[in-house]
Amino acid sequence: MSLLVVGSIAFDSIRTPHGQVEEILGGSATYFSVTASWFTPVRVVAVVGEDFREEHFQVFRGRSIDTLGIERVPGRTFRWKGEYVGDMNQAHTLATQLNVFESFVPKIPAAYLETEFLFLGNIDPVLQLNVRRALPNLRASGLDSMNYWIKGMPEELAKVLATVEILVINEGEARMLSGHNNLKKAAESIRKLGPRVVVIKRGEHGATLFSPDSIFTAPAYPLDQVQDPTGAGDTFAGGFMGHLARSQDLSDANLRRAVAYGSVMGSFAVEEFGLGRLLRLTPGEIDARYRELKSQTHFDA
Amino acid sequence: MSLLVVGSIAFDSIRTPHGQVEEILGGSATYFSVTASWFTPVRVVAVVGEDFREEHFQVFRGRSIDTLGIERVPGRTFRWKGEYVGDMNQAHTLATQLNVFESFVPKIPAAYLETEFLFLGNIDPVLQLNVRRALPNLRASGLDSMNYWIKGMPEELAKVLATVEILVINEGEARMLSGHNNLKKAAESIRKLGPRVVVIKRGEHGATLFSPDSIFTAPAYPLDQVQDPTGAGDTFAGGFMGHLARSQDLSDANLRRAVAYGSVMGSFAVEEFGLGRLLRLTPGEIDARYRELKSQTHFDA
Repeated sequence: MSLLVVGSIAFDSIRTPHGQVEEILGGSATYFSVTASWFTPVRVVAVVGEDFREEHFQVFRGRSIDTLGIERVPGRTFRWKGEYVGDMNQAHTLATQLNVFESFVPKIPAAYLETEFLFLGNIDPVLQLNVRRALPNLRASGLDSMNYWIKGMPEELAKVLATVEILVINEGEARMLSGHNNLKKAAESIRKLGPRVVVIKRGEHGATLFSPDSIFTAPAYPLDQVQDPTGAGDTFAGGFMGHLARSQDLSDANLRRAVAYGSVMGSFAVEEFGLGRLLRLTPGEIDARYRELKSQTHFDA
Repeated sequence: MSLLVVGSIAFDSIRTPHGQVEEILGGSATYFSVTASWFTPVRVVAVVGEDFREEHFQVFRGRSIDTLGIERVPGRTFRWKGEYVGDMNQAHTLATQLNVFESFVPKIPAAYLETEFLFLGNIDPVLQLNVRRALPNLRASGLDSMNYWIKGMPEELAKVLATVEILVINEGEARMLSGHNNLKKAAESIRKLGPRVVVIKRGEHGATLFSPDSIFTAPAYPLDQVQDPTGAGDTFAGGFMGHLARSQDLSDANLRRAVAYGSVMGSFAVEEFGLGRLLRLTPGEIDARYRELKSQTHFDA
């Protein structure tokens, strides 16, 4: 089933205790779409500059990702430079060049208007709301946001929050958005703002789903080594929304499966720098790790 | 089955965003034994001062906790004063008066010598080793430690680690002890020091079991409000060891159940200041929350 994502496409320069890379393909829409494409066809709405070449488009086109909505405009593509140290739980931004992303106005191709599943990546909430309103036939929409918008544009964020079914957000940002340190209260309070379902991403501690019916936690899949945490949250969202769009099932049991797929995909993302591991996956590897995650959380009554 | 704990008994003064209390009964051996007594009879080896009165002894004696090993000596009982702020993930120690605990030398009553399950609470590793050696008929022993001993007495800690089957330790201290930020590597490295089983306590994120057979994570049970985190780790250990001693089963499946019981008991501990909630429990409440935790972690293949 059709899944559309709007977000950023970027060239990332990243340093971690395990190495460094320069100007590799990244951005929220990139991690999301490459991940979700393992589950369902994906459409991307984003903007890139003239330095975004055919080889970069091929990363998408080679894998059932429609690039009609990736607008190429004069100028340079968004660049981000960051570093992770110690336990790598926090990215330290060294430089951000918004470039063409600064004046990004998402344009929805006519062919996308019947899209049924939408993910509004972490961009200006005014743009998120415009995209949401442009798609009348949605079965479900998910949203991400961050401290910058929560603090800077709370009213605009509230407007778009009121239009989505699902919020997928980091732990710290759930606390900031709700004003509650307690995560259960934070989720309850956020659910009153609009989203029926709140998924709180907890990094190396997994993710917790707050739905009308229940609370569910999936841990992160334990790895021998985390090479590069960049994109893990967008990858989680890609696995989560990808499974929902594939299955077209918004039941509580299936939302739980979607969280587990999100956790599994996030664990692949961080095994290598950039998109490396996500591009080399097989459906068998995804299913095997999903079953392993299940066995790692099972206990008897 | 007999379960012995050696650790501290203290009077705690605690301030959290939800209130404050003065000189209430606490300490690692107290939280551990009160919790484990819901599962199995417990024996306590600890020291108290002259200010420790009959009413305090009654907290133990009223609940199948043998106090023969609680030595009462001239002087004042150990006192700790601490504060939690914000998300309450870290205790800030405001004052510590070791008092009679400073010269504590654990003495094992003859009646305790056939003890089969032992928990060495977080005390001087030289004392831990002496207790371990005094008990020849153990089926399993667990150990806790902290940064103070890991940094200050690494060789003595290594000696006692080599004699125990189970280490129950905080996430940060597992990293410090092993020198690895990655928890899987940390656990593997610690398992080479002696303990067959490593249980890493992750506070509000639950706990992860690393056994020879598998990895298992139980989340923390989500609460509406955490009143006071004091004693949560010792309570976790009490539920974990209490279930093992009750069941006399060290299989992987049963170690997982023990971790889940630890998580459940920890969630009760933090609902009220001090021992409040742990003293008022019923077996039905424990079982109901255990089943709820199971449902909160279940997902289908």
